[in-house]
Amino acid sequence: MEQWDIRHLLQRVADGSVSIDEALLRIKTEPFAELGYAKPDYHRGIRQGIAEVIYGQGKTAEQIIGIINALQAHGQQTVLITRLDTEKAEAVNKEIPLTYHEMGRIGIAGKMPEERKGKIIVATGGTSDMPVAEEAALTAEVLGNNVVRLYDVGVAGIHRLLSHTEEIMSARAIIAIAGMEGALASVIGGLADCPVIAVPTSVGYGAAFGGLAALLSMLNSCASGVSVVNIDNGFGAAYQASMINQMGEK
Amino acid sequence: MEQWDIRHLLQRVADGSVSIDEALLRIKTEPFAELGYAKPDYHRGIRQGIAEVIYGQGKTAEQIIGIINALQAHGQQTVLITRLDTEKAEAVNKEIPLTYHEMGRIGIAGKMPEERKGKIIVATGGTSDMPVAEEAALTAEVLGNNVVRLYDVGVAGIHRLLSHTEEIMSARAIIAIAGMEGALASVIGGLADCPVIAVPTSVGYGAAFGGLAALLSMLNSCASGVSVVNIDNGFGAAYQASMINQMGEK
Amino acid sequence: MEQWDIRHLLQRVADGSVSIDEALLRIKTEPFAELGYAKPDYHRGIRQGIAEVIYGQGKTAEQIIGIINALQAHGQQTVLITRLDTEKAEAVNKEIPLTYHEMGRIGIAGKMPEERKGKIIVATGGTSDMPVAEEAALTAEVLGNNVVRLYDVGVAGIHRLLSHTEEIMSARAIIAIAGMEGALASVIGGLADCPVIAVPTSVGYGAAFGGLAALLSMLNSCASGVSVVNIDNGFGAAYQASMINQMGEK
Amino acid sequence: MEQWDIRHLLQRVADGSVSIDEALLRIKTEPFAELGYAKPDYHRGIRQGIAEVIYGQGKTAEQIIGIINALQAHGQQTVLITRLDTEKAEAVNKEIPLTYHEMGRIGIAGKMPEERKGKIIVATGGTSDMPVAEEAALTAEVLGNNVVRLYDVGVAGIHRLLSHTEEIMSARAIIAIAGMEGALASVIGGLADCPVIAVPTSVGYGAAFGGLAALLSMLNSCASGVSVVNIDNGFGAAYQASMINQMGEK
Amino acid sequence: MEQWDIRHLLQRVADGSVSIDEALLRIKTEPFAELGYAKPDYHRGIRQGIAEVIYGQGKTAEQIIGIINALQAHGQQTVLITRLDTEKAEAVNKEIPLTYHEMGRIGIAGKMPEERKGKIIVATGGTSDMPVAEEAALTAEVLGNNVVRLYDVGVAGIHRLLSHTEEIMSARAIIAIAGMEGALASVIGGLADCPVIAVPTSVGYGAAFGGLAALLSMLNSCASGVSVVNIDNGFGAAYQASMINQMGEK
Amino acid sequence: MEQWDIRHLLQRVADGSVSIDEALLRIKTEPFAELGYAKPDYHRGIRQGIAEVIYGQGKTAEQIIGIINALQAHGQQTVLITRLDTEKAEAVNKEIPLTYHEMGRIGIAGKMPEERKGKIIVATGGTSDMPVAEEAALTAEVLGNNVVRLYDVGVAGIHRLLSHTEEIMSARAIIAIAGMEGALASVIGGLADCPVIAVPTSVGYGAAFGGLAALLSMLNSCASGVSVVNIDNGFGAAYQASMINQMGEK
Amino acid sequence: MEQWDIRHLLQRVADGSVSIDEALLRIKTEPFAELGYAKPDYHRGIRQGIAEVIYGQGKTAEQIIGIINALQAHGQQTVLITRLDTEKAEAVNKEIPLTYHEMGRIGIAGKMPEERKGKIIVATGGTSDMPVAEEAALTAEVLGNNVVRLYDVGVAGIHRLLSHTEEIMSARAIIAIAGMEGALASVIGGLADCPVIAVPTSVGYGAAFGGLAALLSMLNSCASGVSVVNIDNGFGAAYQASMINQMGEK
Amino acid sequence: MEQWDIRHLLQRVADGSVSIDEALLRIKTEPFAELGYAKPDYHRGIRQGIAEVIYGQGKTAEQIIGIINALQAHGQQTVLITRLDTEKAEAVNKEIPLTYHEMGRIGIAGKMPEERKGKIIVATGGTSDMPVAEEAALTAEVLGNNVVRLYDVGVAGIHRLLSHTEEIMSARAIIAIAGMEGALASVIGGLADCPVIAVPTSVGYGAAFGGLAALLSMLNSCASGVSVVNIDNGFGAAYQASMINQMGEK
Repeated sequence: MEQWDIRHLLQRVADGSVSIDEALLRIKTEPFAELGYAKPDYHRGIRQGIAEVIYGQGKTAEQIIGIINALQAHGQQTVLITRLDTEKAEAVNKEIPLTYHEMGRIGIAGKMPEERKGKIIVATGGTSDMPVAEEAALTAEVLGNNVVRLYDVGVAGIHRLLSHTEEIMSARAIIAIAGMEGALASVIGGLADCPVIAVPTSVGYGAAFGGLAALLSMLNSCASGVSVVNIDNGFGAAYQASMINQMGEK
Repeated sequence: MEQWDIRHLLQRVADGSVSIDEALLRIKTEPFAELGYAKPDYHRGIRQGIAEVIYGQGKTAEQIIGIINALQAHGQQTVLITRLDTEKAEAVNKEIPLTYHEMGRIGIAGKMPEERKGKIIVATGGTSDMPVAEEAALTAEVLGNNVVRLYDVGVAGIHRLLSHTEEIMSARAIIAIAGMEGALASVIGGLADCPVIAVPTSVGYGAAFGGLAALLSMLNSCASGVSVVNIDNGFGAAYQASMINQMGEK
Repeated sequence: MEQWDIRHLLQRVADGSVSIDEALLRIKTEPFAELGYAKPDYHRGIRQGIAEVIYGQGKTAEQIIGIINALQAHGQQTVLITRLDTEKAEAVNKEIPLTYHEMGRIGIAGKMPEERKGKIIVATGGTSDMPVAEEAALTAEVLGNNVVRLYDVGVAGIHRLLSHTEEIMSARAIIAIAGMEGALASVIGGLADCPVIAVPTSVGYGAAFGGLAALLSMLNSCASGVSVVNIDNGFGAAYQASMINQMGEK
Repeated sequence: MEQWDIRHLLQRVADGSVSIDEALLRIKTEPFAELGYAKPDYHRGIRQGIAEVIYGQGKTAEQIIGIINALQAHGQQTVLITRLDTEKAEAVNKEIPLTYHEMGRIGIAGKMPEERKGKIIVATGGTSDMPVAEEAALTAEVLGNNVVRLYDVGVAGIHRLLSHTEEIMSARAIIAIAGMEGALASVIGGLADCPVIAVPTSVGYGAAFGGLAALLSMLNSCASGVSVVNIDNGFGAAYQASMINQMGEK
Repeated sequence: MEQWDIRHLLQRVADGSVSIDEALLRIKTEPFAELGYAKPDYHRGIRQGIAEVIYGQGKTAEQIIGIINALQAHGQQTVLITRLDTEKAEAVNKEIPLTYHEMGRIGIAGKMPEERKGKIIVATGGTSDMPVAEEAALTAEVLGNNVVRLYDVGVAGIHRLLSHTEEIMSARAIIAIAGMEGALASVIGGLADCPVIAVPTSVGYGAAFGGLAALLSMLNSCASGVSVVNIDNGFGAAYQASMINQMGEK
Repeated sequence: MEQWDIRHLLQRVADGSVSIDEALLRIKTEPFAELGYAKPDYHRGIRQGIAEVIYGQGKTAEQIIGIINALQAHGQQTVLITRLDTEKAEAVNKEIPLTYHEMGRIGIAGKMPEERKGKIIVATGGTSDMPVAEEAALTAEVLGNNVVRLYDVGVAGIHRLLSHTEEIMSARAIIAIAGMEGALASVIGGLADCPVIAVPTSVGYGAAFGGLAALLSMLNSCASGVSVVNIDNGFGAAYQASMINQMGEK
Repeated sequence: MEQWDIRHLLQRVADGSVSIDEALLRIKTEPFAELGYAKPDYHRGIRQGIAEVIYGQGKTAEQIIGIINALQAHGQQTVLITRLDTEKAEAVNKEIPLTYHEMGRIGIAGKMPEERKGKIIVATGGTSDMPVAEEAALTAEVLGNNVVRLYDVGVAGIHRLLSHTEEIMSARAIIAIAGMEGALASVIGGLADCPVIAVPTSVGYGAAFGGLAALLSMLNSCASGVSVVNIDNGFGAAYQASMINQMGEK
Repeated sequence: MEQWDIRHLLQRVADGSVSIDEALLRIKTEPFAELGYAKPDYHRGIRQGIAEVIYGQGKTAEQIIGIINALQAHGQQTVLITRLDTEKAEAVNKEIPLTYHEMGRIGIAGKMPEERKGKIIVATGGTSDMPVAEEAALTAEVLGNNVVRLYDVGVAGIHRLLSHTEEIMSARAIIAIAGMEGALASVIGGLADCPVIAVPTSVGYGAAFGGLAALLSMLNSCASGVSVVNIDNGFGAAYQASMINQMGEK
């Protein structure tokens, strides 16, 4: 309920074309569906420019189906479901056609955007970081961005990364994904002239402490222009990278 | 030493206008000053679009003066020094004229940029977060951005924040600064349609654990479009916010 | 064994109607059952106004049956068993009729209270917090309170919560349940004029660290009137909320 | 801005006694002062029943004076300032008459409430917990509650606590304050029939880790009816205890 | 190889009854078996008064059999195997007759000591602590001590514990076992006049952090005379309690 | 108030030599002084065999004087004050004659015990552990034990420790004090046949984390017969070691 | 691409035997294979003297086969695969002959080195540390070193270790592997005159916290000449020990 | 006391040239000084090839003087004192001539070694790491090694490090010192063919947690051949690097 709406409503109350009770009702109307177990947000597209996304983990297939139906009934063309395991994807697919990407645990209901803009690089330190990277890359593609994947360019063989310097220099946003010591973000941060979103992964063992080492490393990056999202949060990084990548286009 | 330079150099070697030894020398020339205690980076402006910044903490006044001199001699017009305490600022000021902002612990040698672009909001949860906020705001201004300060809009009195919804909706980047439970980032993240850079602060006591509570809170933000920098890292947030704010201008 | 009992007993010793040995025995009599593996507390109802509850986890079905029998034999009408998994519930049910709520892992032996008082709100940040919320809501109902459920009102879509402001303003106690960054407690705490019991949940991933992020966030709430119970402790929150809700009735 | 206000305003817009622009202005009017560095909340008294309190730490004496002036100008009779050190208290006192309690670091501007209700017990494990206890006790008194202090009743000499069982049984809310192992909360929680707010303190050394041991201990209390606030947060405990103590009086 | 042995050996070298090479060999002889995967210690009985015990976890059934055989061949009458799961116990039992206690995960090869001395109390906070308690109680019995079990005497119902005050006052060593907030150790420590060995258990959830809360609580005990062993280490507590209990007998 | 007292009192009530009110009063009489800020425990000597000790930290000199006076007035001959800094010691000394040991921060009011029994070894890993060691050694001496000091016998030069094997073998209790990696406890634990009380110290830097490394190390000791007290808790170790050392004498 | 190669290439560009485009191409040629999911490093042998090793965890059997093929095609004679579970080893073995060591989870494709040099000791605290020890020992053997295994020489029976003093004194590098309190590294560090690489293992329970206790203990070793690798990182220790052992041979 | 000594001693006992008591005495003679507060180790030079070093922190000037005197009296030519602050250095210098290096907090009594061997690189991420670097560099020089200092070569400007590739390729051991994210160790580890000893420093703020971030990062290095010492432990790194650097020379 934005301010211009209130002004407009007040004008109609003033000229009698809307009754007080009706006005009160409209102000009270919830801009979201009430499903009991969930309240999908219809206004997010207006508020944030990107429509509601479903976080699949901790929801039943039935709940996911219910939310997709509510969003599609409300006019949302593409619904992205993240953290969707194979079993639930199959259950959902029986009700609603779904494109499912197993490695990235991503389901997509509806059609992909036809046009893709700009350039987002998704880089990983190692092969084991690929599930997080695919979550990020697919999300970015669903949100209408061109994506370049640079996998296994960790800093222990720095020449593998440096051979892509030109690619890095021409990106509009970079997602740097790494587990273990997470040094990739700092090195890329020092090479790039665009924002770098760092994603620590839970890849590693022992003192990696489930991604804590990479997280702390990335938060302490000595390179400027690096910010960090939660461990394994490929989606969150892609969401912000998409916002950044599409800024120049507005 | 970028690739187009190598191509150019190779051409000149091929046509004999540059000797092999000279070419080798150029390839070897370090793009940074060698001061012994520091190696200020002359290429950062080229590589990252923003010139070298000096992190004042842990450096002596003499070292800071040496680095400023090296950067100015190399043509850098504005030198930003962060985490500069009053005592060192006075010592530096005797050698090099300096504008000093005590609350944000920021020193500026040289002139401020004349033109400022776009709009970055710097919001804080409370009055005590102001030192970090001023570090961020001043950095953003030095980097040529318009800055709007929204201080003390913490979520315990949510109407204080909501009264600025319009301001928030029109920003190009937002820096959300909060200690204690750090909930500000999530609420702003849910309202804004631009990237939000969250800065946890060490403000608080007890189980705030020097900013850890706010840091974890922000990393786990349920709002999309939020990324996080280190505790109290106002500079880092401003640096990335500036990159984002100026994207549309390129 | 309260003080007035001692006085009464002393009078009867003084007038000879009770022998010394008998008096000594009564003072020594344990106000709890001795089952070897457990000592169910018969006096809790007197001491605390709420009868003994069985924490099901880490107890075998046999032990649970034994304790229910002891409590019922001692006159307790309703026995609440928390953290009871489906398998154990079925095993218990073969011996003692049990109403079982799977999502909240709650078993109830005996009849529900007929009258319910006041109003406790159980609010959650997301759909995934529902198991904890149901543990809280069912416990509160067993203890004789009216419960209003507000699920999925997390702060990333603050209007979903604000649309219930009136409900929140009229509650006598609120249980705010959230995982991830746990900001819900602070926002509700700023809106409500009754005590808020915050329950961090283990919902989340990565730097949520099994509920630690939400726990620290809630402990550092900048809103006044918020206290916190253990991660996932829906029962504990409901127990205290019930005490509070029923205070005015005494 | 509550709903009945909107309804009233709409009626006046409908009958022409208020113009659209004026209505819009009123809706937009911030229910808080704008001091730049702070936004004291004038509505808290309406919303939460307890007027705005100033957290003194991290604010300058000038800022504190400014906020007291704004609140008093807005009609608030008693202003409580917590975490106020001696030096700042003296500086404030030069401008605004202040009653200052050094041990509890509490300043009070304006007059104390004449009537006190109910009974809140403030209990501590040891002598060293007194600063936190006094913060709690004084806050509770400012908020209009009768307070009983039970200091140094730690569980290592359980008879000291048990000698006060009758007192404990008759309280309407109990604040249990302890550092080190924090066991006091559990033992009181098992004796009392009213809500217990536990306050871990940073008293202790070594593996007390600044109050972490007591905090974890209290969160894991095996007694029902215990909730916890932040380490050393005497104010927060008193605020909630006051809400609870005064419930029956409404 | 103790000093008196060296003196004796030197005398025999001096009088020629032992050759230099033989003396050297004896000094070099290892007072333990060399099994490749393990080096069971034959001298522990001499050095510490209690014979070698086998920690079953992380060893294969074959390795355990090998070590039992080596110890028995060397004359050890009773071999205690701790942390022995049911499957391995059955596998060992096929080779070597074994008494197996499932709850305490304890296997005993050979005969139990006929005489038991003194009195060790094994007390637990709750029913769920019984596996650790049985590990302690059985170990203490194997080592020749009288054991009194006091289970489910947690501090939330302090009268359950106080009803055993006389028992506690007459013990020679007490093992206090508790998870969650671990307050049992402090309360017993305040009542008893003998050493209390506290064992935190991993029982609990959420902020119990696998026993960390109880561990910290016990380390910070405000009662004197309390020391602590590792989480769930019933064996270690019993071992030391046995040493203490048998001191007066020496 | 022990059970035999109750029996005796009941007899006197029965024969009329004690009135009901008087009996009730006696039962209610607190076995501790009520100083407001503290409740020194007069019964500890009876209950635990060792009289009340004052923990000096966090108490003012006035409070300490008050408690000493109360204890001495009640007949306690020797009062031990731990964690007493030089300044407070001097302030106390003006009122009550005090023997003060600066390194161990120990004050002693009254006379030392004339007879000392048994043998307690106080061993340290390094020279820097001496303040904790002296707190332990002096406490043990005040409690009437013979003490042998073995300082700087850390495991990096294992021969320094092994040269004292005979001494170690003849002790009745050993206090093993070490910072850094705390390995001393394990090595001594493997050599000794008496209980070892391990005291981690906050000596060290970096990943010593204020004694955490030594604490964890000691809790995980692979040697049997080792228990642990809080970081730097020399007093606590000595208290328990004294209990153990004097067991055989009872 | 080393400097001498650039000089040589420049000479050939200068004399026209290599064209500019060809030179540019060579400079750009990546010294690694591009498999999409991985970028095996062909230059590591040249750069570091030890050829590329495959970390098996988190890679599929197909990916491992692909990388082995790429490395063998590029001339690498022996390919070591670490953290390879039995199932994957069998799958790989169907395509490429593999020697598989189950305890150490090590696979070896190609032939073992014929000559072994020097002497590396691999010592463990207990039997349960053997999987890590075998990973280290086998890695060291693949890299061409003589290995002496000393298993179960933990410090609780120090004579077991001391009986190998001569062996320890003659090693060129020692790998000290221990879980629990990790004291082995300090004791060996004090005995040896060669570098000691300490490997904490995740063996233990409770406050071992998955190897954290041993890790902190080893980092704080009071012995000089000890450095540490990640928890359970037998490979990493062996890699560095091999570098050290073979230094004298260069 | 090595084995060949025992053989020799036994021969002399056999031929009567040494009496039994004298032999016993020799075996018992402690190879260290007994200063009460310290036991300096005379055998370390024999055992480890490097003479005893004094860790200055936590020792008084008097104790340091005492230990230097004991070592010099025993023939040690160069005594290194680490962590020696300016004040103590001056106090020591009054008794014993001392060369003092303030930045590295290193004192040297006696003469420096005349010959230096091999090549150790000491590299730092930033200027603020210099105190730790100088501790390392000076220690390495005292131990007779050639040292090359590469300061401020952090990974955010990777070309600064790469310009020294040749230097790095020719080192025999490298000490990589960095705070913040500690990525330097991994990048150097990927470039070098010699062992890399990583030293995390406490430089940084916020989530650097006093060096913890760098420590975890370095322990999780994806580069092989990297091991780690304690935070700020420049001495420890230099000690091991010296051992490695001098291996080929033996």
